[in-house]
Amino acid sequence: MAYDQQNIFARILRGELPAIKLYEDEHVLAFMDIMPQADGHALVIPKVAAVTLLDLPPEAAAYTINIVQKVAKAIEKALDAKGIVLMQLSGEAAGQTVPHVHFHLIPSSIHHLGKHAAQMGDQDKITALAEKIKAAL
Amino acid sequence: MAYDQQNIFARILRGELPAIKLYEDEHVLAFMDIMPQADGHALVIPKVAAVTLLDLPPEAAAYTINIVQKVAKAIEKALDAKGIVLMQLSGEAAGQTVPHVHFHLIPSSIHHLGKHAAQMGDQDKITALAEKIKAAL
Repeated sequence: MAYDQQNIFARILRGELPAIKLYEDEHVLAFMDIMPQADGHALVIPKVAAVTLLDLPPEAAAYTINIVQKVAKAIEKALDAKGIVLMQLSGEAAGQTVPHVHFHLIPSSIHHLGKHAAQMGDQDKITALAEKIKAAL
Repeated sequence: MAYDQQNIFARILRGELPAIKLYEDEHVLAFMDIMPQADGHALVIPKVAAVTLLDLPPEAAAYTINIVQKVAKAIEKALDAKGIVLMQLSGEAAGQTVPHVHFHLIPSSIHHLGKHAAQMGDQDKITALAEKIKAAL
C-alpha cells in the first residue's frame, strides 16, 4: 500500500496536529491514544514512512520494539499495571485505522479491551496519565 | 516474575514437547498455535528465558521482532492474508497463559478474533497451513 503523507500520524510527526507526547527521539515517537481502550493506552510509532509492520525496515522495527519495551516499563511503574497488551494491526482488514505503522500498549486484559478506536477519551484525564508515565520513563 | 523452566514453551524449546514448527534459528522459534484464534495463527518466541516483553533483553526483542516480520510476510503470502494482528500479552492480568514471552501473529481482524487460548484446533488442518507458510518463508 502506498504511504499517505496526510495520515494523522504523519501530520503529528510533522507537528501539524497536536499529540500528548510521552517520548520522542530521532527515530520514534510515543504518545497517548486519544481514543483509549483502557486508562494509559499509549502508541509507539517509528518516524519512517511505513504503513504496516510488514513494510517497516528491519532496523526501524528493532529500534521501535526497544522503545515499546521502555514505554511499557514506564506504564507498568507509573500505573502499577499488572498486565499490558501489545497490539499492532497491519492492514485495514486487521482493524488498522491509521495507515502509519503503530504499536498499541494497553494496560488491560485481552479479554476486557474496549472496542478499538471507538470513542474519544477525556483529554484532561489522558494528559494526567501521560504526566505519570513520562515521570516513570 | 521468576521464570518457570517447566512452562510448555520452555519444554518445546528443549524438545520435550512437540510443536508444528515454522522457523528456527539459534535465537528464535516460530511455530503454530495449537489453539488458533484464526487459520494461520502462529507464535514467535525468543529462546532466552523471559516471562514478558518487559523482561526480555533489548537485543533479543529486536531480533525477535525481525523474525516476527519475516513470519508475518510469509503468512501474508501463503494465505493471502489481507490483515494481520500482532498481539503480545505481558502478565496473567493481560491474558498471558504461558509464562514465556511470545508474539502472536493472527491473520484476522481485531474485531473478529476468536477467544484467546479457548479451544484446540484441528491438528491436520494446522499442519497443512504450516506447510504453506513454511513454503513462503
